[in-house]
Amino acid sequence: MDDETVNSPSGFLKQMLGELPIETAVRDYEAWWEAEGKDISTTVDQKGTPWLKMFDVMGNRVDEILFPDSYWKMLKKGYQAGTVWRGLEGGSLLPAYMLGYITAFYDTGLYCPYTVSLSTAIPLSKYGDEETKARFLPRMLLKDGNAWQGATWMTEAGGGSDLGATVETVAQLEGERWVLNGEKYFASNAGADLAVVAARRSGAPSSVRGLSLFLLPRRREDGSLNYQIRRLKNKIGTRSVPTGEVELRESEAYLLGNPEQGIYLILEVLNISRVANCVGSVALTQRAISEAHAFARSRVAFGKPILEHPLLRRQFAERVSLLEGAFALTWEAVKLLDEIWREIPPYSERYHLFRLVAHLAKYWTAELAVQTAKWAMEVHGGMGVLAEYGVERWLREAMILPIWEGTPHRQILDGLEVMERKHAHELLFRHLASHANPQALEDTAGQVEALLALPQDEREAQAEAVFRELAAFTAGTLQLKLASLPVSK
Amino acid sequence: MDDETVNSPSGFLKQMLGELPIETAVRDYEAWWEAEGKDISTTVDQKGTPWLKMFDVMGNRVDEILFPDSYWKMLKKGYQAGTVWRGLEGGSLLPAYMLGYITAFYDTGLYCPYTVSLSTAIPLSKYGDEETKARFLPRMLLKDGNAWQGATWMTEAGGGSDLGATVETVAQLEGERWVLNGEKYFASNAGADLAVVAARRSGAPSSVRGLSLFLLPRRREDGSLNYQIRRLKNKIGTRSVPTGEVELRESEAYLLGNPEQGIYLILEVLNISRVANCVGSVALTQRAISEAHAFARSRVAFGKPILEHPLLRRQFAERVSLLEGAFALTWEAVKLLDEIWREIPPYSERYHLFRLVAHLAKYWTAELAVQTAKWAMEVHGGMGVLAEYGVERWLREAMILPIWEGTPHRQILDGLEVMERKHAHELLFRHLASHANPQALEDTAGQVEALLALPQDEREAQAEAVFRELAAFTAGTLQLKLASLPVSK
Amino acid sequence: MDDETVNSPSGFLKQMLGELPIETAVRDYEAWWEAEGKDISTTVDQKGTPWLKMFDVMGNRVDEILFPDSYWKMLKKGYQAGTVWRGLEGGSLLPAYMLGYITAFYDTGLYCPYTVSLSTAIPLSKYGDEETKARFLPRMLLKDGNAWQGATWMTEAGGGSDLGATVETVAQLEGERWVLNGEKYFASNAGADLAVVAARRSGAPSSVRGLSLFLLPRRREDGSLNYQIRRLKNKIGTRSVPTGEVELRESEAYLLGNPEQGIYLILEVLNISRVANCVGSVALTQRAISEAHAFARSRVAFGKPILEHPLLRRQFAERVSLLEGAFALTWEAVKLLDEIWREIPPYSERYHLFRLVAHLAKYWTAELAVQTAKWAMEVHGGMGVLAEYGVERWLREAMILPIWEGTPHRQILDGLEVMERKHAHELLFRHLASHANPQALEDTAGQVEALLALPQDEREAQAEAVFRELAAFTAGTLQLKLASLPVSK
Amino acid sequence: MDDETVNSPSGFLKQMLGELPIETAVRDYEAWWEAEGKDISTTVDQKGTPWLKMFDVMGNRVDEILFPDSYWKMLKKGYQAGTVWRGLEGGSLLPAYMLGYITAFYDTGLYCPYTVSLSTAIPLSKYGDEETKARFLPRMLLKDGNAWQGATWMTEAGGGSDLGATVETVAQLEGERWVLNGEKYFASNAGADLAVVAARRSGAPSSVRGLSLFLLPRRREDGSLNYQIRRLKNKIGTRSVPTGEVELRESEAYLLGNPEQGIYLILEVLNISRVANCVGSVALTQRAISEAHAFARSRVAFGKPILEHPLLRRQFAERVSLLEGAFALTWEAVKLLDEIWREIPPYSERYHLFRLVAHLAKYWTAELAVQTAKWAMEVHGGMGVLAEYGVERWLREAMILPIWEGTPHRQILDGLEVMERKHAHELLFRHLASHANPQALEDTAGQVEALLALPQDEREAQAEAVFRELAAFTAGTLQLKLASLPVSK
Repeated sequence: MDDETVNSPSGFLKQMLGELPIETAVRDYEAWWEAEGKDISTTVDQKGTPWLKMFDVMGNRVDEILFPDSYWKMLKKGYQAGTVWRGLEGGSLLPAYMLGYITAFYDTGLYCPYTVSLSTAIPLSKYGDEETKARFLPRMLLKDGNAWQGATWMTEAGGGSDLGATVETVAQLEGERWVLNGEKYFASNAGADLAVVAARRSGAPSSVRGLSLFLLPRRREDGSLNYQIRRLKNKIGTRSVPTGEVELRESEAYLLGNPEQGIYLILEVLNISRVANCVGSVALTQRAISEAHAFARSRVAFGKPILEHPLLRRQFAERVSLLEGAFALTWEAVKLLDEIWREIPPYSERYHLFRLVAHLAKYWTAELAVQTAKWAMEVHGGMGVLAEYGVERWLREAMILPIWEGTPHRQILDGLEVMERKHAHELLFRHLASHANPQALEDTAGQVEALLALPQDEREAQAEAVFRELAAFTAGTLQLKLASLPVSK
Repeated sequence: MDDETVNSPSGFLKQMLGELPIETAVRDYEAWWEAEGKDISTTVDQKGTPWLKMFDVMGNRVDEILFPDSYWKMLKKGYQAGTVWRGLEGGSLLPAYMLGYITAFYDTGLYCPYTVSLSTAIPLSKYGDEETKARFLPRMLLKDGNAWQGATWMTEAGGGSDLGATVETVAQLEGERWVLNGEKYFASNAGADLAVVAARRSGAPSSVRGLSLFLLPRRREDGSLNYQIRRLKNKIGTRSVPTGEVELRESEAYLLGNPEQGIYLILEVLNISRVANCVGSVALTQRAISEAHAFARSRVAFGKPILEHPLLRRQFAERVSLLEGAFALTWEAVKLLDEIWREIPPYSERYHLFRLVAHLAKYWTAELAVQTAKWAMEVHGGMGVLAEYGVERWLREAMILPIWEGTPHRQILDGLEVMERKHAHELLFRHLASHANPQALEDTAGQVEALLALPQDEREAQAEAVFRELAAFTAGTLQLKLASLPVSK
Repeated sequence: MDDETVNSPSGFLKQMLGELPIETAVRDYEAWWEAEGKDISTTVDQKGTPWLKMFDVMGNRVDEILFPDSYWKMLKKGYQAGTVWRGLEGGSLLPAYMLGYITAFYDTGLYCPYTVSLSTAIPLSKYGDEETKARFLPRMLLKDGNAWQGATWMTEAGGGSDLGATVETVAQLEGERWVLNGEKYFASNAGADLAVVAARRSGAPSSVRGLSLFLLPRRREDGSLNYQIRRLKNKIGTRSVPTGEVELRESEAYLLGNPEQGIYLILEVLNISRVANCVGSVALTQRAISEAHAFARSRVAFGKPILEHPLLRRQFAERVSLLEGAFALTWEAVKLLDEIWREIPPYSERYHLFRLVAHLAKYWTAELAVQTAKWAMEVHGGMGVLAEYGVERWLREAMILPIWEGTPHRQILDGLEVMERKHAHELLFRHLASHANPQALEDTAGQVEALLALPQDEREAQAEAVFRELAAFTAGTLQLKLASLPVSK
Repeated sequence: MDDETVNSPSGFLKQMLGELPIETAVRDYEAWWEAEGKDISTTVDQKGTPWLKMFDVMGNRVDEILFPDSYWKMLKKGYQAGTVWRGLEGGSLLPAYMLGYITAFYDTGLYCPYTVSLSTAIPLSKYGDEETKARFLPRMLLKDGNAWQGATWMTEAGGGSDLGATVETVAQLEGERWVLNGEKYFASNAGADLAVVAARRSGAPSSVRGLSLFLLPRRREDGSLNYQIRRLKNKIGTRSVPTGEVELRESEAYLLGNPEQGIYLILEVLNISRVANCVGSVALTQRAISEAHAFARSRVAFGKPILEHPLLRRQFAERVSLLEGAFALTWEAVKLLDEIWREIPPYSERYHLFRLVAHLAKYWTAELAVQTAKWAMEVHGGMGVLAEYGVERWLREAMILPIWEGTPHRQILDGLEVMERKHAHELLFRHLASHANPQALEDTAGQVEALLALPQDEREAQAEAVFRELAAFTAGTLQLKLASLPVSK
């Protein structure tokens, strides 16, 4: 990768994908980040957790989220550029994810509001009744910077993996209206104008089957606050997105889709954000490489820039290759999602293939992001641990990536499940066959089959190494496939 | 490892080493940490960078370092327990490193003041002239909590790897007294009563040969400040040790040893702290495992504590095994250091063996500490990224471990050098032979030889994988060796 | 005042009052502050608002208030010394207020927990039924540092002056038990084990007549949290007391006294804390003088310490004189309170005299505290606005004193009311007659009578100047009276 | 004052002064503050002390001052509007002070950079040699937002009153160039492109006669840093101006004016900033009234807004009257300064009249600003001490006003001196005679004469009351004079 490309997210997209469908938009957005956004982003990170103005000076509850004054400008910029509206208007999700890549290169946390807004707009457009859609969807797709923001609030205090057991929010049908009561413990983009929310129907079974998905506006029809923000959480990174605890007290909500199929809708929402997590992870990986590169070109030791020392030069080459593989894997997940996101249960084989690729990509890219951020700190030597120079920020930002949208543990077990139940590994191997090294494919397939043949407990216990192997193989194969495409460089 | 041992650093030491020579002191020290120290340490971490009181209200320069009021109690506790004085009084360094392990389990950063104090007392005792020793050494070994603190200030703004080029501090002999002028950019334990300082003799060559080692007191003979602290650095972790920028302006100093051999003395100082870095890394690894363990025992998902889920159970077992290996590798470095620290140049083969083991251990244990801290955050899921719950602290603390005392890059290249020049790998293989798997030893040796046969640039470029392999092999073999000892459990 | 006395709160008490009944306790307490407490207090102030740990890492609500680790030691010290138990055990409130003076000299905010604890224990002892007293009172009077803390929560978001209109918390009798629902917006000492709380009886009139006073424990009988802390408030000063917003949700409570007379009980509670506010204000005044004095003795300009410049010397003398007058006024309020606190409605003339003296003292002393803190900053010149040197703290601390327990506006109007309705000014003039300058008394009385003769709106509009005059006259007269007592100096 | 005027600084200027010469510029500037500046200013205040980036990541000294990203936009706005260039281009200082009033209403601290820039440009234009002027002055008067900033650094660690004794910075003539060495302890607008600096000529007497005034650029002719910023100070307010400690080490400087007359030049510089301090104080007074007014209009107690309660209504009326008097006094100082600033020693009677008016105005307006900010907090009740609502900010900002540019103590003694030596009181009484109440004038004159007849020490000791009286009388008289002018309302 040439020196210029390493520092430019759009340059890298172009190197990997060739002509971009929205190249001007992407370039303009990147130019804004370089000119203004970078400084704003640094200020937001350094200022720490945003501040919740819970009451006005008269004692009225207002729940305003206060950021440094220029935060809102930065936030609006992405909505205007099309991080959300391009996902629903052009017939393809790809442009939205491209803009997400640019965003995350400059501010990983800021990509979250756009992602959860897209993850709100999509189920609304797919499962909302006509009246609900007519009322809310156009506001989410405004292009003037005033687009309503979305949010996806599933998790409660008991944890996020076992939703069937831990969702205690109750939805009650009162006349024609659903009313929700409960608390959401990890509410990303708290303050959103609209949220999709998992809740248990009153009287429904205490398992995943009792869950339904609802649309929850920030304000009631009478204009009053429809949910309250108890507090914002002090996170080590991603300070550009306010994460709060949200209290639902007699909150008005709109049912989305079939109430019995809530868990499927919830998982569909997660598909969108899981893929975004991959995009964000790859972007952060590039950013960390870019920071390390800039330092290593200037820092001199033993008579030459450290970038020219053989060991460091090799580390750079390896990091770049891993970056390219991770991007290829991620972009495959994006394209598959773009194919299958309109499906409703029961799903096609293509959907199950997507699921496996997405679990592999989430696992692989988040890990790469963390390791590359750590390595960038090491390249900086002692400068790396100083808050002053900002390189430590990327590790703080990265650490949320393996955790959000399911920990590695979760990706592995869910990946295992889709292999067991849907034979998704077979779909994957067929999918990769034309570009894979045949021997490597055979070896990997053998490992997977051997794993699946083990008894349940043993299978889970041993799954990690095989899953990692499968992810590496898939990334490497897709890297070859992408490189083989005719690309205009 | 049983549930109790995982939470007790002294329990782990006993499991690994059997009877401890200073068991009562170790247990008492640990008990104090549990009763009082833990809370103090948390406060210090959360309060952030200590504050430098540069002037008193009358405008007089004072350079006092201000911590939360209870910090000093915590700091004195370790000096009293013997983190320094036991290193010089009992004829063995081992007790001091044992106490260091306890310290670092509770507060990684706090282990630094003790380490640099030991790293000051040792060269003073070894190379100071009688008058200098008589004047300063007894104050460093006080057992009542009023021991003078030491510090080791080598690095300047140009970076720490290439001291020959980057040390610009000049030492001038004025009459019988040395006077230093310059700036130390990463001065750990700024505010120390005594420091050992690298400086270039006025007129000496601009390479490592021009460097000598000096002892620098905080106050001049007339009581005035002998160095000034320009500012304290805002680090992401290790806030229990004040790291500052120090200005030397006509500062009084005492030459240590032969002025022509300064670089050897500097490297001897680094030996002590590099080994301490290993001890601290292993202790932090145990701490992170302990935190993850406590969480996983209580957090329930899918009907049982997540600790009982097969994949997580296996991850725990692997982490514990890695911990034990890392400890065995580290303790070998401690014991070798205890054998060779009194040597002066030219050094014995044993010294060169130590050097290789120390480089391997530094590389291996720091990496393990970071990875385990990261993993502990993942085990905590979303709770892991919240400042509120403290598990993120261990990653912040860990990130300095691969950087201090030489980055991984540096360990690899220095390890390579001692293999090339002193054939230290051959010494190592002989050292391990009686406990190693013969085939594994042969394979590893073959890899090392192949590496060393490559041309210089290629050798450096490819060194990392072999070095990692060698570290893993050495750790594993020493783990077996330690386990084969008769141990009272 | 001699140089030593200016720096010693117990020295000043002794100068003003002669032999102290609990001199040893007072001296020991002061000695602890000098040796340890001062540093702790500085740390607490600089660390800012304490942190609310709302949930444990498992997601269980805990509402723990986190301070720097040594805060609790400081807090316990005052409970042990007798800031509360001495108020109820020795038959006199004076020792408790003396210890309060020492506390407030060192940490104005910390005096609040003791004050509200005393203000809880007293109505409990006076109005609690036997079972309630037996259950709770002994725990508040423990002398071992484990005394339960109290709190007095009246104010809600609508403001504190017009309780009849702004208290929206509702008390419902369910069977034999009262249950409260509502929110307290300014809950000092949030986290207290017991609180006295103003609430409106369900169905009662929406005026002060509908209010009753209740005792509210932190935990329900079943051990669960009986109230929740929504958040702690970020105040500019008094950080040693956690001020929070408290949510009462089906909270168990115990009625105190006659439910129809709640407003009287509320005002009785305020009597205790209003007097404490005076004591705290005078102590802070002394502290500010002491800080200014220390600076002015050392800072040299135009060849001599600035303390010796005629204008500054005169300012000091005036400040000391004002301090002595304010103390005399305050101590009169303390002694009157000690006489009348056991009264129940209808009250004696002595009670009404107390009320007027207390309003005058609150108004006068809080103003003096602020002005003296401001002046101490000016004496420090440029050093005065630097956070580094701490003198600015006293202004931040002082600014709550005119606001807590009723603003100046409130004191004036309430003072006016007790003069109009109860002719308290006549009681006051008789009370002062034997020590007052007859002419000054006649003049002041004339002004008051003229004011009271005005129409209502005009009377209120013009009240301030007369009230200030009356306060100055009363303070000056009582200063003479106190000075005329035989005092052992 | 009507409700609209109280909230608008330009509205108030117009009410007091009638047609404004630069009304459009003033209105546009105010409109920008309302639309954008207010939020930026709040962020800067809450973010606290700006951050000094002392070194870049390569270890090169850079001394960049980092503010929230939008600070620079706010700062440039004032330079563009003409806070500096209008002072030198239009033949009158008045427009610059009018824009200063607008600035200080919104952000008191931000007025400082403009003031010290004007205080740099004026002596440069008046005393610089042609080459120096040609080189630097045009850059200070750029209208595009890139104007160079100035600064006025006199004070050192020993204090600011007695410059003759405390200035230890030494100026040495090396060839044709002056070189300065020393430290400036309170360097407002640290980071300025140009500063005027007081220094003692090498070998000159150690009194004020040894002082000269120099112009010091930020960068040497060779582009390197000409001074270093040791650190920024953590102030309780005025965070919009970076105040630092500056180290001069072989710093290049340009002599201004006659070296023997340095002390006169220093005092001339102070004239400009002292008057600005008055303007800023009045603006802050208006701001505090405006904040209190907004609250009191909305907060309801006892059935009506508290603004309509008679006592508070009267307090408002009194505050507004004091505001108008303070403005009248300040504007007289502005106009007199505009007449005399081009004078060089020996000065005219008009100059001495100005000096007395400026001392009175500084004393009177700073005190009013503090007291009004305090009162605004009290009007807010409990809300007043919460950082959340911002009213406490105005007290923090105000507290610097009595201290900067000389404490009250200093104003009184300097005012006394100009009355003793130059009979400035007689000039003043003649100046006021045509608008003053004859009896009041006679009484006041009598008091002043009596004071001046006292022996020196007694005179100083008793000066404060007379000085306060004289200030009140002067303000009141000028208020009448201003009100008597034909004004277009």
